[in-house]
Amino acid sequence: MDVRTSLIDKRLSKTKRIISVASGKGGVGKSLVASCLALNLSKKGYEVGLLDLDIYGPSSHIILGIKDFSLPKEEKGILPHEISGIKFMSIVYFTGDKPAPLRGNDITNVIIEFLAVTQWGSLDFLIIDMPPGIGDETLDIIHLIKKSEYLVVSTPSRVALGAVDKLLKILKELKLPIIGIVENMKTNDLTLIEDYAEEKNFKYLGSISFDSSLENAIGSPDKLINTGFMKDFEKIKEKIV
Amino acid sequence: MDVRTSLIDKRLSKTKRIISVASGKGGVGKSLVASCLALNLSKKGYEVGLLDLDIYGPSSHIILGIKDFSLPKEEKGILPHEISGIKFMSIVYFTGDKPAPLRGNDITNVIIEFLAVTQWGSLDFLIIDMPPGIGDETLDIIHLIKKSEYLVVSTPSRVALGAVDKLLKILKELKLPIIGIVENMKTNDLTLIEDYAEEKNFKYLGSISFDSSLENAIGSPDKLINTGFMKDFEKIKEKIV
Repeated sequence: MDVRTSLIDKRLSKTKRIISVASGKGGVGKSLVASCLALNLSKKGYEVGLLDLDIYGPSSHIILGIKDFSLPKEEKGILPHEISGIKFMSIVYFTGDKPAPLRGNDITNVIIEFLAVTQWGSLDFLIIDMPPGIGDETLDIIHLIKKSEYLVVSTPSRVALGAVDKLLKILKELKLPIIGIVENMKTNDLTLIEDYAEEKNFKYLGSISFDSSLENAIGSPDKLINTGFMKDFEKIKEKIV
Repeated sequence: MDVRTSLIDKRLSKTKRIISVASGKGGVGKSLVASCLALNLSKKGYEVGLLDLDIYGPSSHIILGIKDFSLPKEEKGILPHEISGIKFMSIVYFTGDKPAPLRGNDITNVIIEFLAVTQWGSLDFLIIDMPPGIGDETLDIIHLIKKSEYLVVSTPSRVALGAVDKLLKILKELKLPIIGIVENMKTNDLTLIEDYAEEKNFKYLGSISFDSSLENAIGSPDKLINTGFMKDFEKIKEKIV
């Protein structure tokens, strides 16, 4: 590791809670949960930051409808843009909407750089949109952000649960605080995820019904606030905060 | 690179077509499309191999209901197990259903090792279940398997399309053969993916409706063959073969 890692703790010292939204699986709605959690908390008057650390596949900016990719201001670090009341940081400000031509250590470097330079100021919540899977990026972030709690997202599918289970095994082994499991895109009455949570002694936070009209709200925070997704999520949020 | 890479071309020399099922995004049904393509072709009498190269999040074995994780036989290389008529190879035979504690170069090594040692014999089709995203593993595989064609899977979502677009940009830049785009989990009438394909001059192969009863067929090839998913997929397959 390098000297910047010592800066990371300092940068996050005025943040009351750090919640990393994670899943062993991609495409389960991790970015949506992270963005909606940030939006919801911001509307309730909290100071909120949202950091998209899915370097290869950032999507929070699509969900929030960000089209201004101008570089954030530098001032003893980088001051995040403010979007719908949320302090927001993502790799898209540096790469635009193009593929990030980064491999292995470069990704780790970008993640360290982001954490070391971003001036969040005082926050009630920093929400982190984690990369999918349990690859190097995920493991690096887990080690770099020491005081994070983990909110784990799954869909009601055996395939998703297989991957989620692997992530939870790692988080548990590292003795990290796991807030619980959110079940997203619920379309059936199977109790797969609930049963798993009970058996393995994780907190089951509730489910969000599959919302086929949600796509029309992507890119518009005002519309997102009024979706069925957000209505279901509201109850789950109460258990998180 | 090492001496094993020269072996890879030899191992794949008796395979008529290699189809890599890829997506810039996780959770879009890549493994399901790969497994169902393999099953469908095998039922039609073709010699088919299925190679799961999603080392961090293998799921084809869950879809095919594999419970016997005993090591494949070694004989001048490794002979893949035969599952429902398909020659199948996955990391799960080596790690069981536990997280693979591998980082960076180890993953590349495992991928090279797999490709260099597996004795596929004569195949009409080798279907490859690619890792999600455009990280190191994906780029390594693209470089290692020279004669592959690419079948790209997306869901009808702006977020998924954002990631899929990045993958397609890379494939196009490398001048690799792109069979076309499959739209999975269709629930609405939005023509997002079709419009994108037309605009960017990719072949749109068709859509598969969201099938909420599909989950009950996961783990059973016999049931999978009779799902709505497979019925929709049949028409798409005709355009691939």
